[in-house]
Amino acid sequence: MAENDVVFVGNKPVMNYVLAVVTQFNNGAKDVRIMARGQAISRAVDVAEVSRSRFLSDVVVKGISISTEVLNTERGETNVSAIEIILGK
Amino acid sequence: MAENDVVFVGNKPVMNYVLAVVTQFNNGAKDVRIMARGQAISRAVDVAEVSRSRFLSDVVVKGISISTEVLNTERGETNVSAIEIILGK
Repeated sequence: MAENDVVFVGNKPVMNYVLAVVTQFNNGAKDVRIMARGQAISRAVDVAEVSRSRFLSDVVVKGISISTEVLNTERGETNVSAIEIILGK
Repeated sequence: MAENDVVFVGNKPVMNYVLAVVTQFNNGAKDVRIMARGQAISRAVDVAEVSRSRFLSDVVVKGISISTEVLNTERGETNVSAIEIILGK
């Protein structure tokens, strides 16, 4: 899987990321990984659901995994949850 | 799966739901389903990760699914994303 087949979801509006996902499929990607951490996890699920149901009817959720990442901040290490949603044809 | 083996995650602190999950396993549940909608999805992932890594070392994520639910509000129908995380031994 090429590195550009990953969409990192942050604090922008959902449709920005949906557009990124749809564009990657239109450019020939077989799978697109949607990744997010912390509060953006909810938005990542929105991105997957909107992409699939409104724009990419031939795409399914191939896998979802969750994990915990350790971030180094000014106040020391902190744990943050992460999600990875793989959409594919 | 008994109906009480489901934990619905809302706006309370993460540890409240972690306690509910741990209690259900201690009461003999083989699987516990963690469910959430909208903004609470991020918290549901936190609940699963904290439960598993800190309290239930013999429990794994058995499955994760996402979906879209239609809510009837005063302003008409609206779509909301949902997640279901199944933890099991």
